[in-house]
Amino acid sequence: MPKQRMEAFTDAIFAIIITVMVLELHAPASGKFSALWSLRHTFAIYLASFLILAVYWNNHHHLFQIVRSIDGVVLWANTIFILFISLFPFATAWVGDNHVDSVAPEMLFGTVMLLMDAMFLVLVRTLIHADGENPEIRKLVGKGYNKPYISMIGNLAAIFLALIWPPLTVIVDTLLLLLWVLPERRIERHVTNGQ
Amino acid sequence: MPKQRMEAFTDAIFAIIITVMVLELHAPASGKFSALWSLRHTFAIYLASFLILAVYWNNHHHLFQIVRSIDGVVLWANTIFILFISLFPFATAWVGDNHVDSVAPEMLFGTVMLLMDAMFLVLVRTLIHADGENPEIRKLVGKGYNKPYISMIGNLAAIFLALIWPPLTVIVDTLLLLLWVLPERRIERHVTNGQ
Amino acid sequence: MPKQRMEAFTDAIFAIIITVMVLELHAPASGKFSALWSLRHTFAIYLASFLILAVYWNNHHHLFQIVRSIDGVVLWANTIFILFISLFPFATAWVGDNHVDSVAPEMLFGTVMLLMDAMFLVLVRTLIHADGENPEIRKLVGKGYNKPYISMIGNLAAIFLALIWPPLTVIVDTLLLLLWVLPERRIERHVTNGQ
Amino acid sequence: MPKQRMEAFTDAIFAIIITVMVLELHAPASGKFSALWSLRHTFAIYLASFLILAVYWNNHHHLFQIVRSIDGVVLWANTIFILFISLFPFATAWVGDNHVDSVAPEMLFGTVMLLMDAMFLVLVRTLIHADGENPEIRKLVGKGYNKPYISMIGNLAAIFLALIWPPLTVIVDTLLLLLWVLPERRIERHVTNGQ
Repeated sequence: MPKQRMEAFTDAIFAIIITVMVLELHAPASGKFSALWSLRHTFAIYLASFLILAVYWNNHHHLFQIVRSIDGVVLWANTIFILFISLFPFATAWVGDNHVDSVAPEMLFGTVMLLMDAMFLVLVRTLIHADGENPEIRKLVGKGYNKPYISMIGNLAAIFLALIWPPLTVIVDTLLLLLWVLPERRIERHVTNGQ
Repeated sequence: MPKQRMEAFTDAIFAIIITVMVLELHAPASGKFSALWSLRHTFAIYLASFLILAVYWNNHHHLFQIVRSIDGVVLWANTIFILFISLFPFATAWVGDNHVDSVAPEMLFGTVMLLMDAMFLVLVRTLIHADGENPEIRKLVGKGYNKPYISMIGNLAAIFLALIWPPLTVIVDTLLLLLWVLPERRIERHVTNGQ
Repeated sequence: MPKQRMEAFTDAIFAIIITVMVLELHAPASGKFSALWSLRHTFAIYLASFLILAVYWNNHHHLFQIVRSIDGVVLWANTIFILFISLFPFATAWVGDNHVDSVAPEMLFGTVMLLMDAMFLVLVRTLIHADGENPEIRKLVGKGYNKPYISMIGNLAAIFLALIWPPLTVIVDTLLLLLWVLPERRIERHVTNGQ
Repeated sequence: MPKQRMEAFTDAIFAIIITVMVLELHAPASGKFSALWSLRHTFAIYLASFLILAVYWNNHHHLFQIVRSIDGVVLWANTIFILFISLFPFATAWVGDNHVDSVAPEMLFGTVMLLMDAMFLVLVRTLIHADGENPEIRKLVGKGYNKPYISMIGNLAAIFLALIWPPLTVIVDTLLLLLWVLPERRIERHVTNGQ
């Protein structure tokens, strides 16, 4: 089954989720700089959320560069991945509602991040199953592709670190993203050369 | 007439409708787990709605895999299908507003589901008409394609079951979805082999 | 310049505008049928708006079937067309706010419809200019393509009919849509044959 | 890496941001013309914002006409460009909230415009780097492509002009847009001829 329509659907949902968050940025209460300054936390959270979702979109994009065809299982794995992505603004909003140092919001945030990572890994596995003879998939996200595992272990730890000091979850999760910021250098080099 | 632009338009609308529902998930009132727990019904409804719409999108996607070309009648059948899909969040919101055991919201929910199924069938019929010589369409959704009829009879029953015990509508409709969850195995097998 | 990206952009905006209107459909106040019934006007307006926008999208879709290439002028004509389309939910909301029989909302509604039609015609003209040697464009929307003019004259009349009895604007404008419901039969027959 | 998916993602986000702004246009309070008239400022701001974003989308569209392939750096430059674009409705809303003559909102507006222009230039530079052997890119947005610099210097001046008379920022920034309204005539002529 060709992959284009699933990609387009995923892109549309990512685009909407990223943009929906900007709706939460309401104009400051007055026309003074101080009114803008008082929104700095909301702003910082918007910025972080935008970048986190952009990292995931980037990785999805890179991954599908090497995909040749998909099947119904991939379609569903991708749907569940999108479902977890769609919970991200909710988790972020809870943390952002002055709950940076509350245990429950931080643990929810960490859990959503863990689910996103886990489902990304499942998606990778279903792709290997759907297009097993694709040498690029085998080579680039097959054996030795440990990044998702490392990220998930880190995410799991981050959830429980909230019990020590809540903001640790957000901090560790953000640091873990650095793993993904350069999304699949291997894939990119490969795609660029192969074109 | 090529099908791509109609597919893209449909995808965009599905993406928006699915995502619009996440806007209803407001951050819990306080930073405690109990505040999150009190949102469990809203959450369950979001999850169910997301999955139901995903099932319909999946089926639409599978169906159009075998379509080669469309005409103006298909375009309008698809538009009405989208119209009914767009009523889904409204019906869900009514049931979800603490009306799981009220007759009227459940019957509306059942009616919208019935309309969605009926229109999907109409869409299939217009496709057969638009591209009648397409052997795949004839074979895969022509004679012997009874699923939509079974689903519609079930939906119709579900509407009236609300008169006995309202939650039955949602329960039966959800069970009926299982018919569609493995969307057109026949289509998928066919497409995969043919590629 | 290829037309695909402009089409995709237009589709996305149509999809959003159509869907944004469903957000105005809030769940009924209680779980009774009477609560649903009291929303019948809002519902009727949603239905009408959805269908009107669908008619315009359909016509845009048909028109671009025969387009081979565009230029910067087409891009801007299309942008202004989208701008007027984006005002449609606003005009509809005003009429729908219990102002079906007020002069001002009806005249605004008629004006927006007139602007949409006028801009569609401008778009057609820019397409003829951009791809003047395209025989299909010349034949199908060149000389003898009088529909937009008839529609615009009707729209103009409809605006002033509001002064006699306000609901006339909406009624006449809806009747005029019938002109467009079968979007360019000529185009469709042509495209189908030519494929 | 092919450019299509990044273009589609960008288009979706532009479409959403442009359309989200129309949600701010609420129906007038009464059914009189005077109620519509009292919304004239909100209207003017909507119109201006729509056109400004359309100009940027047009330029993005033109730029990518000549792009053959992208890499991960382009992807990120584009993401940051989108991030700044997404701040535009926020800045506009602040100015529009009766703060046309307040220093802070105007300076924020000017700053967002400056960031958008700066990031557009960075995007151009990353494209030159990603596809350096593309003769069209070199020729059309390489040496002698001074427009972004002129625009940025003007933007920078506009920010500080707010200290003299706040509305000057919006006025100067709008005038500077004229530089971009005819988006890359050079590109268009080139693309049209080359096709």
